[in-house]
Amino acid sequence: MPAKIITISRQFGSGGRSIAKAVAERLGYDYFDKEIIDNVAVETGFSKDFVAKKGEEAPGKSVFSYGFETMGVPGIMNGMTMHDYLWTIQRQIICKIADSGKPCVIVGRSADYILRDREGVLNVYISADMEFRKDRLVRLYGDSEQKPEKRLADKDKKRAANHKHFTDLQWGYAPNYDLCLNSSSLGIDTCVDIICSVAAKD
Amino acid sequence: MPAKIITISRQFGSGGRSIAKAVAERLGYDYFDKEIIDNVAVETGFSKDFVAKKGEEAPGKSVFSYGFETMGVPGIMNGMTMHDYLWTIQRQIICKIADSGKPCVIVGRSADYILRDREGVLNVYISADMEFRKDRLVRLYGDSEQKPEKRLADKDKKRAANHKHFTDLQWGYAPNYDLCLNSSSLGIDTCVDIICSVAAKD
Repeated sequence: MPAKIITISRQFGSGGRSIAKAVAERLGYDYFDKEIIDNVAVETGFSKDFVAKKGEEAPGKSVFSYGFETMGVPGIMNGMTMHDYLWTIQRQIICKIADSGKPCVIVGRSADYILRDREGVLNVYISADMEFRKDRLVRLYGDSEQKPEKRLADKDKKRAANHKHFTDLQWGYAPNYDLCLNSSSLGIDTCVDIICSVAAKD
Repeated sequence: MPAKIITISRQFGSGGRSIAKAVAERLGYDYFDKEIIDNVAVETGFSKDFVAKKGEEAPGKSVFSYGFETMGVPGIMNGMTMHDYLWTIQRQIICKIADSGKPCVIVGRSADYILRDREGVLNVYISADMEFRKDRLVRLYGDSEQKPEKRLADKDKKRAANHKHFTDLQWGYAPNYDLCLNSSSLGIDTCVDIICSVAAKD
């Protein structure tokens, strides 16, 4: 059956978000990316920046950070760490989006794992080579005090660690997805074409 | 430019070989799979079975196996282990195929890595879920003293270890390929369609 939900995981700077937007537009699907962070922020009362930052960190690095985080909002978080609490809210929001039954594209946030037991979900991973990602990073996100390679490597590492922590799966390992596309070798437009064509299949 | 060489790496039982054959047939490309083993056997004088087995092992497990292997054919192997010697011959054969300039599909044998610096190479990885692979294994390869899950896990482990040893790259990690397709969710025919369509692009 045609995919009702398309999840798109992506390396930072790979153009995954542009691909996701173009796919949603072409198929007439709803699009969820930062909207999920906005919803988590509303549900929890934390700022969007805080939710976005925590959502890409590797949690539970030390006993100290665990203790410190748990102290934050006793009662509401019910003994959970900050990361676990935010994950739980985020998970609920993603399940609610899926429950609505409206076709959509969801970017990141381990939605592939969260929706793993549902029918009609197409899980896509977008990667790209370092030169392509560096170029996009500098062009689209401007300069930074860090070298682009360092920023990209840091982001990759954090996303992988966060995904591993909550799903016990390796981020970017092909067998965990339906379709993995390299946008620097295939081109952004070809990636959009492939995803739309696969999603429309019976 | 259209891909002149398509390399297909695949999980055992994923249908990667059937996909590769169908792609070669539809595009009118030459097809290399066991033909490479045959050539290595001719070049080295070893049997095809021996070459096939060694080509999927994780080499260099112990000092004993190193010493034992090197003793085999002194002079010819020039101090190399058996695995390194076979890899070198296999590498030469794959480069020769590429040098011929004739469009082709090459299955396995780390051809993606061996040809990494050449233009017009499309690197594909085929995976599939365990149920699909078990079914193909039992249907196409018959019974075995081992349980299908065990055979599949063993093969995966060996192929990954062999690839890592010679390339220092993770087998099946999406950013190392142009295109990764899950044949159990997409279907064999869709995989063939996608690869042919991408290969034909300018």
